[in-house]
Amino acid sequence: MPKDSLPAPQARSYVAATGAFRSGGDTPRDFLERCIGDIDTFEPTVGAFVATNLEAARAAADEATARWKAGKPLSAVDGMPVGVKDIMETADMPTEQGSPLFVGWKGARDCAAVAALREAGAAIVGKTVTTEFAATVARGTRNPWDPSRTPGGSSSGSAAGVAAGMVTAALGSQVIGSIIRPASYCGVFGYKPSVGGINRGGSFDGFSQSCTGVLAATLAEIWAVTRAITASVGGDAGHPGVRGPMTLPDAKKPARLAMLKTTGWDVAAEEAKAALAGACDALRAAGIEIVDARSHDGVAAAEAAIEDATPLSRRINAWEGHWPLNTYARDMDRDGLSGEMRDRLATAEAMTQSEYRDLTGRRDESRKTYGKLSGDIDACVTLSAPGAAPVGIGSTGNPIFTVPTSFLGIPTVTLPVLRAEGLPLGLQVIGFADRDAELFAAAGAILSICGRG
Amino acid sequence: MPKDSLPAPQARSYVAATGAFRSGGDTPRDFLERCIGDIDTFEPTVGAFVATNLEAARAAADEATARWKAGKPLSAVDGMPVGVKDIMETADMPTEQGSPLFVGWKGARDCAAVAALREAGAAIVGKTVTTEFAATVARGTRNPWDPSRTPGGSSSGSAAGVAAGMVTAALGSQVIGSIIRPASYCGVFGYKPSVGGINRGGSFDGFSQSCTGVLAATLAEIWAVTRAITASVGGDAGHPGVRGPMTLPDAKKPARLAMLKTTGWDVAAEEAKAALAGACDALRAAGIEIVDARSHDGVAAAEAAIEDATPLSRRINAWEGHWPLNTYARDMDRDGLSGEMRDRLATAEAMTQSEYRDLTGRRDESRKTYGKLSGDIDACVTLSAPGAAPVGIGSTGNPIFTVPTSFLGIPTVTLPVLRAEGLPLGLQVIGFADRDAELFAAAGAILSICGRG
Repeated sequence: MPKDSLPAPQARSYVAATGAFRSGGDTPRDFLERCIGDIDTFEPTVGAFVATNLEAARAAADEATARWKAGKPLSAVDGMPVGVKDIMETADMPTEQGSPLFVGWKGARDCAAVAALREAGAAIVGKTVTTEFAATVARGTRNPWDPSRTPGGSSSGSAAGVAAGMVTAALGSQVIGSIIRPASYCGVFGYKPSVGGINRGGSFDGFSQSCTGVLAATLAEIWAVTRAITASVGGDAGHPGVRGPMTLPDAKKPARLAMLKTTGWDVAAEEAKAALAGACDALRAAGIEIVDARSHDGVAAAEAAIEDATPLSRRINAWEGHWPLNTYARDMDRDGLSGEMRDRLATAEAMTQSEYRDLTGRRDESRKTYGKLSGDIDACVTLSAPGAAPVGIGSTGNPIFTVPTSFLGIPTVTLPVLRAEGLPLGLQVIGFADRDAELFAAAGAILSICGRG
Repeated sequence: MPKDSLPAPQARSYVAATGAFRSGGDTPRDFLERCIGDIDTFEPTVGAFVATNLEAARAAADEATARWKAGKPLSAVDGMPVGVKDIMETADMPTEQGSPLFVGWKGARDCAAVAALREAGAAIVGKTVTTEFAATVARGTRNPWDPSRTPGGSSSGSAAGVAAGMVTAALGSQVIGSIIRPASYCGVFGYKPSVGGINRGGSFDGFSQSCTGVLAATLAEIWAVTRAITASVGGDAGHPGVRGPMTLPDAKKPARLAMLKTTGWDVAAEEAKAALAGACDALRAAGIEIVDARSHDGVAAAEAAIEDATPLSRRINAWEGHWPLNTYARDMDRDGLSGEMRDRLATAEAMTQSEYRDLTGRRDESRKTYGKLSGDIDACVTLSAPGAAPVGIGSTGNPIFTVPTSFLGIPTVTLPVLRAEGLPLGLQVIGFADRDAELFAAAGAILSICGRG
């Protein structure tokens, strides 16, 4: 499938249009129709959606149109076209989890995040394709920058849909790499919050290091979507949820950043490493000190603490996925599970509570080690992926650069400011637990220095 | 409804019968048929079940019969008749949550606890009545000791079903008083674990201080059910789950107990207070030191720390219940919610993230204060309820004695060794977070001293 068969994709900022909504030069309904135009153009090739409800989205956009005209929007996301990863329940559309076992499955309620977004006026456009149970097995979505390549996963449709302008923002989830990696491959902004930061009620996502997060055209939309959710329904139970101003925190230039290599360095493309080096040069030129494992003992300790993030995360996830895979295999249809899922179930069945306790204990230790960097540096930077999206849609690519932040439970954003193979590549900016607003302030400053790729 | 219309209820110990299962003098199938006989006798009056699947239970009991005969039971719960609170998903029966909104609602999977129990061979008999969404509004279950009285709630059917011998054990849940209170009223053993201690996957129960727990005929069955679950699927994600031996920990006489009055003292019946005093006398006579707020500063601090447990818990629960009540009201049927639930939704809508953060911060402080007692005392004792089950089935009674352990996230058991108004009353034994096995060891010793009421 040649990339020339599609126009160049372009994400659509909603926040940028709101001035015109107020003045009457544009409307949320017209904005949505432009998104639908992009759906008509891209969707037959890209396959970002499992289901859409354009009628409901148009009705929401019309209501928002009236409110913006009256100068009384419900929120910054009033009327914003949003996609929802298909592991999250929606009252009006099925939730199929990328699994043949759940084809047509439909509850009668919205998940917490969607319920809150609708209360804030958002136009929920559709359910976006996820890999099977937000894990490994891809479900056919293609990268709008080059349809011969994967968009990444597991939030495949969310990334592709935002990149192609079909929606301004989309909900995703990440337990090892499912937001930051596809956002990097598709050239959009992506955000995985501090663990617990966004209420996961009603999402089929019970992993202890997983988060609901947001992919969008700009940082402003990511923040607005996040806050529209958390101001209403908070974080996971027991966690207050991401806090801060309702609109994007002001950029604040960090004084000192740490450049992390992570275990991804060994497999990263030379072009990607050079792109990161270039970004670091620009940051240094702007007066920001950049330390790394060679120059800073704390960073060296943090690098060591995440060295086993991938194998530890995989076993933690296996144990935590014992249920519901056991009931899916026994009570639904074992043959409806992929070989990967059956393998994961077998792994879980061979594990013990003691091993799991040891694993989470090691994770706790790693989190403490990383936390000690707080106060000494303002944020970390690294690549969001080892390179551009790989060719082929059978695999969603290597999550190696994204596992550490999930393992550590810390907030991270990817900025689409680097390039490799002439395609998008993300610069990852990483903060400290429960200080998500500070991360956005730093990321905003870094973005203004590094520009758009 | 005169109590004389029913025979005296009697809980059925399964563990006590397993010797005969091995020798061939009894079988799990015969045991189950005796339970079904009690269902025939009591259920028309008591109303413990929303649904049963006796065919599946009989099939499980038959399989267990063969295994016990062969000397190869899958676990201590192999063939045990178990009831499941109707907020927990079951592959073979609806999950209605005590709400008209969910009448007939049925997923295709088991919740984590049920999936694990089936793997361990348990015979899942049916779904037990819960108050609406495991909260306030009772659904008609009657106390088998006196059908004019409430069985307590929210785990109403679980308590009544165990008390009447319809099942040996039943799963319940408690966020403020929903296990210990009905167990006390119905004269059965009840256990609320350390927060996170039993995997809640697939239970409609997202509150941060809520737990899945167990009610049963004896402590041995409670422990066996708990460990059959946690050895397989652990605790809530991130928590290893209750650990320890697979069968009941050996009793270990505590050296020092604290007698807590809690804010319940002011409303407790004189007869109940006298019954607790009698139990304390017996414990002292057995050589156990008993301290209280007057004699021990740490106990005084703990009493102070739980003084506001009820109002703080109610507001924490309100915030955490914002979702799904908001989507139920908007996307399902607002009129299908009780007035209590609509009020709770209105409370949530008026709350802020900041208030919630303050509330959980105060809860954290209280947990620290209580935790300081660890090492200095072995366990705490108090009443499980202010008195016997109240007359009337419109209310499930006062949870005032049970809120503190939910608020503190600590394990607690109720022993049916006290009496008031000639009816059962529980002695509550309270431990320390994530030391559930130690609590059972202490409770076993206390039980042997105080005997059965």
